[in-house]
Amino acid sequence: MIDYTATYTDFYQLTMAQAYFLRGRKNESAVFDYFFRKLPFGGGYAIFAGLEILLDVLEKMKFREDELTFLKHQGFNSDFINYLRGFRFRGKVSAIREGDVIFPASPVLKVEAGIIEAQIIETVLLNILNFQSLIATKASRMRLAAGNRKLIDFGLRRAPGPGGYYSSRAAVIGGFDATSNVKAGLDFNIPVSGTMAHSFIESYENELTAFRDYAEIHPDNCVLLADTYNTLKSGILNAIITGKEMKERGEKLMGIRLDSGDLAYLARESRILLDRAGLNDVKIAVSNQLDEYVIKSLLEQNAPIDIFGVGTSLVTGSPDASFDGVYKLAMSDEKPRIKLSETISKITLPFKKQVYRIKESDESWIGADAIALEDENEILKIYHPFETGKSMIIEKYQKEALLEPVMEDGVRRNGRRSVEEIAGYCKARLDQLPREYKRFNNPHIYKIGISEGLKSDRDKLINEKRADK
Amino acid sequence: MIDYTATYTDFYQLTMAQAYFLRGRKNESAVFDYFFRKLPFGGGYAIFAGLEILLDVLEKMKFREDELTFLKHQGFNSDFINYLRGFRFRGKVSAIREGDVIFPASPVLKVEAGIIEAQIIETVLLNILNFQSLIATKASRMRLAAGNRKLIDFGLRRAPGPGGYYSSRAAVIGGFDATSNVKAGLDFNIPVSGTMAHSFIESYENELTAFRDYAEIHPDNCVLLADTYNTLKSGILNAIITGKEMKERGEKLMGIRLDSGDLAYLARESRILLDRAGLNDVKIAVSNQLDEYVIKSLLEQNAPIDIFGVGTSLVTGSPDASFDGVYKLAMSDEKPRIKLSETISKITLPFKKQVYRIKESDESWIGADAIALEDENEILKIYHPFETGKSMIIEKYQKEALLEPVMEDGVRRNGRRSVEEIAGYCKARLDQLPREYKRFNNPHIYKIGISEGLKSDRDKLINEKRADK
Repeated sequence: MIDYTATYTDFYQLTMAQAYFLRGRKNESAVFDYFFRKLPFGGGYAIFAGLEILLDVLEKMKFREDELTFLKHQGFNSDFINYLRGFRFRGKVSAIREGDVIFPASPVLKVEAGIIEAQIIETVLLNILNFQSLIATKASRMRLAAGNRKLIDFGLRRAPGPGGYYSSRAAVIGGFDATSNVKAGLDFNIPVSGTMAHSFIESYENELTAFRDYAEIHPDNCVLLADTYNTLKSGILNAIITGKEMKERGEKLMGIRLDSGDLAYLARESRILLDRAGLNDVKIAVSNQLDEYVIKSLLEQNAPIDIFGVGTSLVTGSPDASFDGVYKLAMSDEKPRIKLSETISKITLPFKKQVYRIKESDESWIGADAIALEDENEILKIYHPFETGKSMIIEKYQKEALLEPVMEDGVRRNGRRSVEEIAGYCKARLDQLPREYKRFNNPHIYKIGISEGLKSDRDKLINEKRADK
Repeated sequence: MIDYTATYTDFYQLTMAQAYFLRGRKNESAVFDYFFRKLPFGGGYAIFAGLEILLDVLEKMKFREDELTFLKHQGFNSDFINYLRGFRFRGKVSAIREGDVIFPASPVLKVEAGIIEAQIIETVLLNILNFQSLIATKASRMRLAAGNRKLIDFGLRRAPGPGGYYSSRAAVIGGFDATSNVKAGLDFNIPVSGTMAHSFIESYENELTAFRDYAEIHPDNCVLLADTYNTLKSGILNAIITGKEMKERGEKLMGIRLDSGDLAYLARESRILLDRAGLNDVKIAVSNQLDEYVIKSLLEQNAPIDIFGVGTSLVTGSPDASFDGVYKLAMSDEKPRIKLSETISKITLPFKKQVYRIKESDESWIGADAIALEDENEILKIYHPFETGKSMIIEKYQKEALLEPVMEDGVRRNGRRSVEEIAGYCKARLDQLPREYKRFNNPHIYKIGISEGLKSDRDKLINEKRADK
C-alpha cells in the first residue's frame, strides 16, 4: 500500500549530497548511528520496531524519472542528477534485533556507507523507525497493564492517515493480539477482528432484530454492541435473548461490547446478567478512550473484562506522540566525528561502536548496557556517558553483543522476519527485563555506560575540537 | 506514493456489509454525517483538510483479487465476495469547502449512498479527514503566532511514517510556506526548502571550509547552520566570513540557522554581529522544538527571527495528537436515525441537514453557524443543540450555505482544487473569523445552533425511541 520513494526525504539531504558529489567526495565513507535520547511515556524502556520495513525500503530505493525532472527544475546540477539516476543504497546496516527493548543514548542501528548514500537515507530511516518504535512501546505498556486479556487495535480511524498501516503492525509487535485493520492483517499476517458499529443497529427498527440478523449471518464471530440505546435496560437484555437463541441452535455468542459509560460498573452488571442467564462463557469486550492507565484501573477494580479494544491513544502514541530518535554522524572519511553542544547530553558518541547487554551467568539481566568501541576486546568497566564520575565494574558479567549485521552491500543478510516472530521476540525480551523497569510510575533507570576505550578516545577528540575553536 | 486500497478499513465494516448484503439490503439508502465534537488544542476553531485526497480515494476504490482471496479465507460468503469484486463507491458527497474553518457538532461532510458503500468508506474517510484536519489546524495556529514570517515544515523525520506525506500537505493548507519533504513538494506543488545538517559540517575538518564549499555549490540557496560547535564564537563568525566572500563574488548569503540554545538570545546576538558586518539582509532562521507558543514567545521578546522551521509538534499535532471526527448515521432506508446516549452531547443529529454560516449584511461573521433540515426554508431562530433553553434570533442575518455537492454517483463534480488554492481559501476564511475566536487562551465560543425544524423533529424522534425501550 505504501511506496516509499527516494524523494520521501528532506530537501537538505539532496543539497548536501550535491555538495559531496561536486566536491568529488561521493566515495568517502561514513558511519551514522541511530539512537534516541528520551524514553517515551515516562517509562523505563522502549521497544525497537520498524527494522524489516526499513530494510525493504533500502533494498528498493531509487529515484524515478519524474522525481529527477522535479529536481532538475529545483536547480540541481545535471551530473548530480545523472548520479541520482543510478543511485542505490549499497551500504552496510547493523542493528539491534527488531522487537528488543532499547534504552537512551545507545546505538540501536548503525549505517556504514558512502557519505551520500548514508545521508540520503536519513529521513526515511527516522520516519520509519521513530513512528513504529513509538507505537510498539505504547502497545507494550498496554500489554503489561492487560495481563493475558485480549488486546485489539481499533485505531485506524484516528491513525495518522497511511501511518495506520504501520501502527497496526507495531501494535502487534508490542503485544497486541489482533487489529481491525484488514489491509495490515493481509500484508503482515496479523489476526483481524471486529463485528459491528452503532450504525448497524440504528439501521434496524429495533436492536433485537439487528442482533438476531447479525447472529444468523456471523454465528462464529458474533460480538454484540450493547450500548446503542441503553446498555443494561436494552442492550444486554437483547444480547441475552440472542445468545440463548444461538445456544438453542448449537451456536455460541462470542461476546458483548461496551463502548460508553462507566465501563467497570457496566461490565460488572453485564456479567451478572449474562451469568444469571447461563451465558457464562460470553466474553465482555470494552472500548472507548482506553490507554494503559485506564486498563490498569479497570482491572484493579476487578472489572470482569476479557477484551480491550484500543484506538486513539495507541495509534497516536499519546501523550508523547513522537519518539525522539536521531541519526548522527560518528565517522567520515575514516575519521571519528563529534557534534559538540553546550547541552552536554547532546554531545554525540564518535567511532564505530558495539552495544552489549550485561547479564549474570544465569542469563538474567543486571539492568545495564555497555557501549564500546567496535574492536574493543575486554570491557571491564563502564562510565556514565556524561557524568563520568559514575562508573561500574562489569568484569564478571556476561556480555551479549546487540548490534548484528542485517544488510551488506545494500542486500539483506537474512530472510525477512515475520511480525509474529518479532512479536514473540519482544515478549521474550520484555519478560527478561526486570519488573522494576516496567512499572509506570518512576521506573528504575536502566544504566547505559560507555567503555574505558570509548570514553578516553571520545574525551581526547572533544579536547582536540575545543582547542580548534 | 500512497495507494489506499479498499481493505484499508475496519474489519467490522465488512462483516456489517455482508449482513446487509445477505439480507437483501444492498440497495437501501443511507445518509451519514462527518462531524467532530471537541476543538483541538483548546482553540476556538478547526480547519477542514483532506477532502480532495478523500475524493481521489473514493473515485478509485476497489477490492483487488488478493484482498478478495484474503476475505475468502476469513470466512466471508462467496456471493458477497463476488459483490465486492464489482464494488465501487457510487454515492453522493456534500462537504464544506476544504480549507474552511469548522466548528463542533456541525456536519462537515455528508455521504448519501447505498448502505454498504456508505459503511465501507467510513474508516478511510475518518482516517484521511481526521489527520489532515488536525495538522492543518495546528499549522494555522503557528501561522497566527508567526504573523508574516516564514514557516517551514521540517517534520518528516518525526512524522508518523507515511502520514508525513499528508502532514506536509495539511501544513501548507493551514498556512505554512514550504516543506522539507521533497515528495510532497513534487506531488502537491508545494515549495520545498532546506540546506544543511550538522553532519555536513562535521564531515569537514573545520566549519569554515564546510560553509565555503556549500556556498560555492549553492550560491542561490545558502542558509548556514551556525551551532555545530559554538554559535557565537564560531558559527556566526564563519558565516560572516562566508557571507562577505559571497558578497565580493556578487552573490548573497541567504541566511543562517540556529538549532539549539536560547534562540531569542542567540538570534539577537547573531543579528548584531551580522549587521555590524554589513550583512543586514541575511535572514535568521530558527528550529528546535518549536510550537505556536514558543513562536509567540520569541516574537514577544522581539527576537529578530525571519524564518521558523517546525517539526515534531506540527506533524504529530501535539499535544492532542488526534482529531475526534466521527461518522454517524443520520438516515437509512429513508427514515431518520439517531443514537441515544446517557451523555447528552453524544446524541446524534438525525435527518438530511444543511449548515449555514450566519453573517451581517456586510459579510462579517457574527460567530454562529446554524444546522437546519436540508429542505427547511426560513431559519429564523436557532437553539443550542443540547441545552435548548438557549436560543438566538437570526432572522435578520445573511446565511451562507456551507455544504456543497462535491461528488455525484461516485464522480467528482468539479476539478481537483490545488493545495495553493485551498491554502488561499483557508487564509481568507481565517481572516474573516473574528479575532476573539483565534486567541490561544480561553477563546470565545463560536455558537452552533439547530433550527426550529431540526429541533422539533429530532426531539420527536428521541421521544419515540425512548418510548420504544
